[in-house]
Amino acid sequence: MAVSHNRQRLKDIDNTGFGPNSSIEGGRLINSDGSPNLRKRGIPIWERISVYHTLLRMKRSHFFLFVLILYTSINLLFAFLYYFSGVEHLTGAENAHTFTEQFMEAFFFSSQTLTTVGYGRVAPMGMITNCIASVESLIGILIFAVMTGLIYGRFSRPRAYLVFSPNVLISPFKDGKALMLRTATYKNNHLTDVEAQLTLALHLKENGKTVTKFYPLKLEFAKINSLALSWTIVHHINEESPLYNYTKEEVEESKVEVIVIVKAFDDHFSNVVQQRTSYTYKQVIYGAKFLPMFEKAETGEYTILELDKINAHELVKMPEHAGHKAEV
Amino acid sequence: MAVSHNRQRLKDIDNTGFGPNSSIEGGRLINSDGSPNLRKRGIPIWERISVYHTLLRMKRSHFFLFVLILYTSINLLFAFLYYFSGVEHLTGAENAHTFTEQFMEAFFFSSQTLTTVGYGRVAPMGMITNCIASVESLIGILIFAVMTGLIYGRFSRPRAYLVFSPNVLISPFKDGKALMLRTATYKNNHLTDVEAQLTLALHLKENGKTVTKFYPLKLEFAKINSLALSWTIVHHINEESPLYNYTKEEVEESKVEVIVIVKAFDDHFSNVVQQRTSYTYKQVIYGAKFLPMFEKAETGEYTILELDKINAHELVKMPEHAGHKAEV
Amino acid sequence: MAVSHNRQRLKDIDNTGFGPNSSIEGGRLINSDGSPNLRKRGIPIWERISVYHTLLRMKRSHFFLFVLILYTSINLLFAFLYYFSGVEHLTGAENAHTFTEQFMEAFFFSSQTLTTVGYGRVAPMGMITNCIASVESLIGILIFAVMTGLIYGRFSRPRAYLVFSPNVLISPFKDGKALMLRTATYKNNHLTDVEAQLTLALHLKENGKTVTKFYPLKLEFAKINSLALSWTIVHHINEESPLYNYTKEEVEESKVEVIVIVKAFDDHFSNVVQQRTSYTYKQVIYGAKFLPMFEKAETGEYTILELDKINAHELVKMPEHAGHKAEV
Amino acid sequence: MAVSHNRQRLKDIDNTGFGPNSSIEGGRLINSDGSPNLRKRGIPIWERISVYHTLLRMKRSHFFLFVLILYTSINLLFAFLYYFSGVEHLTGAENAHTFTEQFMEAFFFSSQTLTTVGYGRVAPMGMITNCIASVESLIGILIFAVMTGLIYGRFSRPRAYLVFSPNVLISPFKDGKALMLRTATYKNNHLTDVEAQLTLALHLKENGKTVTKFYPLKLEFAKINSLALSWTIVHHINEESPLYNYTKEEVEESKVEVIVIVKAFDDHFSNVVQQRTSYTYKQVIYGAKFLPMFEKAETGEYTILELDKINAHELVKMPEHAGHKAEV
Repeated sequence: MAVSHNRQRLKDIDNTGFGPNSSIEGGRLINSDGSPNLRKRGIPIWERISVYHTLLRMKRSHFFLFVLILYTSINLLFAFLYYFSGVEHLTGAENAHTFTEQFMEAFFFSSQTLTTVGYGRVAPMGMITNCIASVESLIGILIFAVMTGLIYGRFSRPRAYLVFSPNVLISPFKDGKALMLRTATYKNNHLTDVEAQLTLALHLKENGKTVTKFYPLKLEFAKINSLALSWTIVHHINEESPLYNYTKEEVEESKVEVIVIVKAFDDHFSNVVQQRTSYTYKQVIYGAKFLPMFEKAETGEYTILELDKINAHELVKMPEHAGHKAEV
Repeated sequence: MAVSHNRQRLKDIDNTGFGPNSSIEGGRLINSDGSPNLRKRGIPIWERISVYHTLLRMKRSHFFLFVLILYTSINLLFAFLYYFSGVEHLTGAENAHTFTEQFMEAFFFSSQTLTTVGYGRVAPMGMITNCIASVESLIGILIFAVMTGLIYGRFSRPRAYLVFSPNVLISPFKDGKALMLRTATYKNNHLTDVEAQLTLALHLKENGKTVTKFYPLKLEFAKINSLALSWTIVHHINEESPLYNYTKEEVEESKVEVIVIVKAFDDHFSNVVQQRTSYTYKQVIYGAKFLPMFEKAETGEYTILELDKINAHELVKMPEHAGHKAEV
Repeated sequence: MAVSHNRQRLKDIDNTGFGPNSSIEGGRLINSDGSPNLRKRGIPIWERISVYHTLLRMKRSHFFLFVLILYTSINLLFAFLYYFSGVEHLTGAENAHTFTEQFMEAFFFSSQTLTTVGYGRVAPMGMITNCIASVESLIGILIFAVMTGLIYGRFSRPRAYLVFSPNVLISPFKDGKALMLRTATYKNNHLTDVEAQLTLALHLKENGKTVTKFYPLKLEFAKINSLALSWTIVHHINEESPLYNYTKEEVEESKVEVIVIVKAFDDHFSNVVQQRTSYTYKQVIYGAKFLPMFEKAETGEYTILELDKINAHELVKMPEHAGHKAEV
Repeated sequence: MAVSHNRQRLKDIDNTGFGPNSSIEGGRLINSDGSPNLRKRGIPIWERISVYHTLLRMKRSHFFLFVLILYTSINLLFAFLYYFSGVEHLTGAENAHTFTEQFMEAFFFSSQTLTTVGYGRVAPMGMITNCIASVESLIGILIFAVMTGLIYGRFSRPRAYLVFSPNVLISPFKDGKALMLRTATYKNNHLTDVEAQLTLALHLKENGKTVTKFYPLKLEFAKINSLALSWTIVHHINEESPLYNYTKEEVEESKVEVIVIVKAFDDHFSNVVQQRTSYTYKQVIYGAKFLPMFEKAETGEYTILELDKINAHELVKMPEHAGHKAEV
């Protein structure tokens, strides 16, 4: 059969970092946010998890919740310490008599110490309470050193800020067809020396065993100088493509996955940024082409990029040639 | 015609990140500060704008104004909170009776809490006021963590600190002519492995439609080891140039734009830095050449680079050859 | 003899940064943590040691111990200064009469000044004490600026987080054998464009002198796109290998050392990361092969990487061919 | 004459970033600390100087002196503001009656506000004094944000920490001679992928005018994998060298300058680091060779690098061949 002939002629690649043995790999390889679909185990979680990276990549709302909970917990802990070492050693807290009142004074004294605001209405007296307060203010400063670093790390982390079209299109191209996806930057950032790399993963049955094979997909342009507007990444499905003469059914059967890596230089960060994504066969649309996503401003003085049109496409009639009707 | 012949022989490039369809692009492509002449829309502004990048690239005076306004706003907000939860819960503010006096005490107590200066002449009492103050001091610390990061980010951002000559010259060169522009670093920084890349954008009429075509401009030296003095970037307008036999009228008609990217290694930042600019046909001067911009110190012990002479040039007679009189 | 024939045909390399003169070099070249097995002397220790790097790479527990000791020392120093300039200049410390009481007040006043918590129960009066306090609060701020930088530097330092198999295996491979070692990332990080480089160091006797020779080891795959699972780095011991026809005795005699460098791009740090290690002949296992270290999750939706199996291997029978029986 | 023949055969390079016109360049091109021997003028000093870079590269003692002077100046300024807006608005300063006493209270209140220590023994009262204090505490926080950034920037700045031999030697090499210089890292850092680049600058008389010509010097090894010990950088003075058959007199006459750039990857910084230096003809020693600068530890377990021997050399007899006696 022509199909398998073609793929057999092509060299699959073995240096993707994924193994060929599908039977011991589960589900898709790369999630659509670009992370590998993978869990690690065998060593304790605190060795396996980088706290810094986790806090760096946490959603902003979660991060601030985490800070609030940490702040309250440390204050509660030290409030107990001050309470048990005697509220009488906190000058200014003499009028607090009930547990609630005393604990409250201890708690807010703790928060004033941790943040180094130290009003002094309540202040420590005596060896033990002074020692605890002295350690707490040191801890406060160290924690907020960590916070400063984390917050700086969060917002200075070089990111590509790319949005990808949710779908991959199979569009008419030259006198055949092509696989197309579209990307654009959605922030006020500007990428130069932008490179894309597409890898096709196929889960094939060979001698009764399912194996995963990887093929690079050749691009019309694998590198552009500058990503100011949008970039339609095009893989021409010609004789040299592993997708040539590949029917829709085969695509589904072999659970096609297209892994996308985009690397670029961002001159605001003055750093290389990278973003990954992955498309499964369910995201492929047959016979469609992208519509332009930018237009001239009414005044004619600048160009407008319409980010909500990243996936804008219209259905089109695919060319029918001898030899590859009705496929992909 | 010879002109179009030449350009038709040359391959235009399609990987600039700009589209070929001029009719939907407005105005110049790159502003002279290197940013793309582009607006984005279609997603909410808070997703489209990177607050960090905006604050990073804001003018210094605007940045400090922003900090002052933010500081005052937060203090006003918390002053209202303290006022409404009862100024009687602020010890030391007992002598304030009018609204103005009480609000003033609340406002300055807020500023003392936010900056964690906490003199304690005025101090919080009771659950609610203490809670507000506790949260405010946390916010204060987080905000100043952000400030520390931003200020560090602002002054440590790798930049090329290049000044470009405001004009592009068409000068005599070898036995023909060349397009020349000049650049130099204007700070006490030193660039090595400096690369320049020039791209020509032409807006041409083809079959009644305006299309944008891009051509790389070959440079005499595309890379220099070190940019200590000034660098005159030279494109020889010979048979292989897309500008060969191109008349002044054609230059204006096709709204020529020269996009310049300079990339280098800065050893103070130990980082790659990049700067872009762009020249339109209005900035081209015909028949001129740059004058030297450095001279020997009187003592003879070092060289002086005169930055105010970056655009210094004198008009010269252009060579007239058979076949390309009166053009560019 | 075939063995020496082979090595003599191969070009050893001289650009490893290590000298060829074994007689003046001691012990292994690279420690297993990747640092060179080397001491420096001849210039004072404070010029030879980068304090920043030392604090950056110190174990976490040691680092916090260091901070605690530094904090206590500075407080002790300033406590003495306040004590000798007169505790009567500290308002609020009037009730302290014994040396212990007065020194304690001075000590805790110092800690409140250093951390800028400044409760004010004890506060400075008069020129000298005020001056000391003013300088101490400046020092406090500068020290905590250093701490902020160090803590940020510690957790933002780009690292590869690679674990290497403790052993190098000699496994059957194709119709011969290969040297194999395995690596994987043990944190929630993801490396792309991963490159490995293996260098073989041999300590050989030549004309009665011991010389060190270096050979690059050619890899089946020297670069993989992405390190999501584990990577078995394979050097085929064929005719082109410096290890071809090399007996176990020779391996021990020449104190074989395999130096490994892995370089990759980490997209969380957006930076190049590098990790080195080294294996001596004592870590080589003959006739063994690695067992898979990942498996499909029970639900089939993702893959599990078992990090405790990094060195998992089973003994296997090595192929015996004419010409290279009983060797490596 | 053979000499000029040789140099005329060689192509000089024009992409060094220095101009060819010696008559308008003064003195040596690169100082021995690697900075260009150059001043800039023509734009105001505040545009020409990067304050950040200046503070980053200032000597440590100067930096701390600068901080102390800045701290005192700001305190003096605000002390005047508090004094002129009325010391009676500073509670706790009522017992200060003379100018000296009042100014002292104002000065130390200012320092307590600037560092946010805020004891509260002295505290602001009333609108104006409160406003000044509120602004001062904001300024304090911003200044110490800058300090945090600067101090972090100072100690995290990627540097190669290379020491170069103070002299360049002309040593016997193969059956001719070579130009040699030696480098080593002097801190506990480790460089990999180390590249050296040597450029020769000659100031020659041509048609009565002095012109500067540049030639690359080919190295025996231009790149080494790792710089653990020392590296002797060797340029073989053979027929292809611009220094071939070049007499000592000519070297002096043409004011030979050897510009050295070393670039490497430092894995502690995870960054590319670069260091430059330059040698003039006065630093060349004829007929000498470097002595080893490392030895085996007594225990034989590690190697010792002796940094004080970086320039250790002994005089040797140079080979005398037909055709190039008595030269360089």
